[in-house]
Amino acid sequence: MRKRILEILRKNTSEAVSGEEISNILGVSRTAIWKHIQALKNEGYEIESVAKKGYVLKSVTNKMRPEEIAAKLKSKYFGHKVYYLDSVKSTNEFAKTIAGENFENGTIVVAEEQTGGKGRLSRGWYSPHSHGIWFSVMLKPPFLPQEASKCTLLAAVAVVKAINKYKGVNAVIKWPNDILLNGKKLVGILTEMSAEFGKINYVIIGTGINVSVPKEILSEELKPLSVSIADCAKEKIDRVDLLTDILKNMEDLYEIAIKDSFQPILEEWKKYTNTLNQEVKVLAPDETYYGKAIDIDEDGLLVVKKEDGTVVKVLAGDVSVRPATAEGRNYQ
Amino acid sequence: MRKRILEILRKNTSEAVSGEEISNILGVSRTAIWKHIQALKNEGYEIESVAKKGYVLKSVTNKMRPEEIAAKLKSKYFGHKVYYLDSVKSTNEFAKTIAGENFENGTIVVAEEQTGGKGRLSRGWYSPHSHGIWFSVMLKPPFLPQEASKCTLLAAVAVVKAINKYKGVNAVIKWPNDILLNGKKLVGILTEMSAEFGKINYVIIGTGINVSVPKEILSEELKPLSVSIADCAKEKIDRVDLLTDILKNMEDLYEIAIKDSFQPILEEWKKYTNTLNQEVKVLAPDETYYGKAIDIDEDGLLVVKKEDGTVVKVLAGDVSVRPATAEGRNYQ
Repeated sequence: MRKRILEILRKNTSEAVSGEEISNILGVSRTAIWKHIQALKNEGYEIESVAKKGYVLKSVTNKMRPEEIAAKLKSKYFGHKVYYLDSVKSTNEFAKTIAGENFENGTIVVAEEQTGGKGRLSRGWYSPHSHGIWFSVMLKPPFLPQEASKCTLLAAVAVVKAINKYKGVNAVIKWPNDILLNGKKLVGILTEMSAEFGKINYVIIGTGINVSVPKEILSEELKPLSVSIADCAKEKIDRVDLLTDILKNMEDLYEIAIKDSFQPILEEWKKYTNTLNQEVKVLAPDETYYGKAIDIDEDGLLVVKKEDGTVVKVLAGDVSVRPATAEGRNYQ
Repeated sequence: MRKRILEILRKNTSEAVSGEEISNILGVSRTAIWKHIQALKNEGYEIESVAKKGYVLKSVTNKMRPEEIAAKLKSKYFGHKVYYLDSVKSTNEFAKTIAGENFENGTIVVAEEQTGGKGRLSRGWYSPHSHGIWFSVMLKPPFLPQEASKCTLLAAVAVVKAINKYKGVNAVIKWPNDILLNGKKLVGILTEMSAEFGKINYVIIGTGINVSVPKEILSEELKPLSVSIADCAKEKIDRVDLLTDILKNMEDLYEIAIKDSFQPILEEWKKYTNTLNQEVKVLAPDETYYGKAIDIDEDGLLVVKKEDGTVVKVLAGDVSVRPATAEGRNYQ
C-alpha cells in the first residue's frame, strides 16, 4: 500500500494530490491514507501536507529502501528481489542463511549498516550506518566451481565502472578485486561460493563501498587508510543511483560471461587495474618476494615475474603495488 | 567417565573387575559406577555382573559410538573429533552448521540414521538406522577452490580400497565418485565446498555406505537398485572397523595430495574405475550422446570421445557405462 501511495506521489511532484484522490484510486479510507503518509514520513520521506490541496512529495528517503531501488532499477533481474535491513552483522552472512532455500537469481541483500562486515581473508570491513553501500548479490551461475573466480573479477569491473562515472573520481582495481582511490581502499569485494563436484550451489558477491564515511567517526588506525567517493567526487552521490548502476553493469557482464565469453571482461579488468606491469611485493603464506605483475590468467590468478626471472602464479597471498611516484621500496 | 570405565573393562575382558576396584581407580562411589554401567548397557554394551566378582565386558555396542571409533582409530587426525548422532537429517547438513566455527581438520560427523540423506545433484540417499555408515569428514585443505575435486576423487579411492578388503567384494568406482557393486550403487559420496577467491573455507566429504540394508525394508522402487556389502561379503562386517579403515586411507591419500602430488591418487582412481575405456552414454543438461570414456583430467572431468570422433569433457551431466556383457544399448 505504501509503495502504491509513493508511486502516485512520485508521478505528481509538481502539485499536491489530495487524500481523497488517493483514497479513490486505492479504494481505502482517507484515514488509512493519512496513517500511511505518517509512516512514510517516519521512514525518511519528506511529504508536505498542503492545506485543502493534499500531499506533495518533496524529497524521497535517503535510505536504500526496496521501493527506491525498484523505482530506479535498470537491470532485468539483478536486484528485483531485495532483502532490506537497517542493520545486520554482514550481508554475506545473511545471504548465506537464506541461500539454502530456493532464491531468485540476482536477489540482493542491502543493509544501512553492518556491525561485523567481512572482507577477504577474514578481515573486517567498517560499515557505518547510511554512509556506504553494503550489499550482497546472490547468484546461481551455470559455471563449474573451477570458474567461480569469474564472478569476483566481473564484480570488480561492474563496480569501478559505475564509480568512475562521478566527476573527479578515478578509481582503479587492485588485484584481485579491491578498488582503490588515491591509493586507499575504497571498495572491498568478498565473493563466497558453495559448490559440489561439477555444480555451483550459489555464489554470493558481497560489496562494501565507502560513499561518504565522515573522517571524524573513524578510529585513529583507520583514519589514514580510509577513503570515500565523496572525498573526490565533484557532484552529489545518490546511493540508490549508484547501486542500481552497479546492478545493471554486473548483470550485463554476467550475461556476457555465461552466454558469450569471459575474454571481454578480462580485457575490461585489465583496463581498470593498477596492478599489471607494475612492480609488486607478494606476501605469500610461506615467503615474501618482489617482482613484476605481467598478466592475469583465466582463473584470475596473477602472473608475476620474480626478480630472479622465474614466472609464478600468485594464488592466495597479499599483493602490494609500488606506485610510480614512490621512492625505494614503498608499496601500497 | 563412561569412556574411562569402558577403557578399564576393555583391558580386562577375560576376568571380572570389581566395582570397588573401578571406584578406587576413578575416585567415585560404587553407586556412581553402577549407574554408569546401567547407562552403558542401555547404549548397547553387554556387561555381565558376576556375583562377588564384579563386571565383565562381554561385547561392545554395535553402535558407532565415539568411544568405539577412538578405540580402533589408526589415523593421525582424521576422526579424532567425532560428532555422533543417533538420527540426523543429513550428516553433511549438520557438518555445514558447525563449519562456520573453527573446527579441527578431520572432524567427522557420524549418524546411525539419516532422515534426509542427500546425494549428488540433489538426489536422496536412503540411510536406515544401523544398516550403513553415514558420515561426513570436515576438512580445510590448503588447495585452491579450483582443486577441490581432488577431495572427491581421493574419497572414492579411500572408500573402495577399504570395502574391497572384504572377501567376496569387488566394488568399482563409477565416474566421478559413485561406488558400484554388481552394477548397483553401493556408496554415494557428496563433496561440498565453501570457498572465497583463492581460499577454501571448508570441504565436507559426505559418504553413505550400505553395509547391510535388509531387502525387506526397501521400497519396491529401490529394491532392484540397492545393494549392500553384506550381499557379497564372505565375512562379518564391523562398521567401526570399516569406518576407521576408510579414515586411515583417506588421511593417507589426503597427505599425499597436499604434500606431494595428485598423480598417484589419479592413478589409483583409474585402477578402480569401471568407466574408462568403456562405451558411455552421457546425459548432459542440453543433449544426450554416446561415446567412449578415454581419460580423466586433473580437475576430475571425464574425457569422452564422441561417436563422431570429437573429444569433449564431461562437466556435470550423468554418465552411464555399458557393461561388457550387455547387448545393444543397455547402459547402467
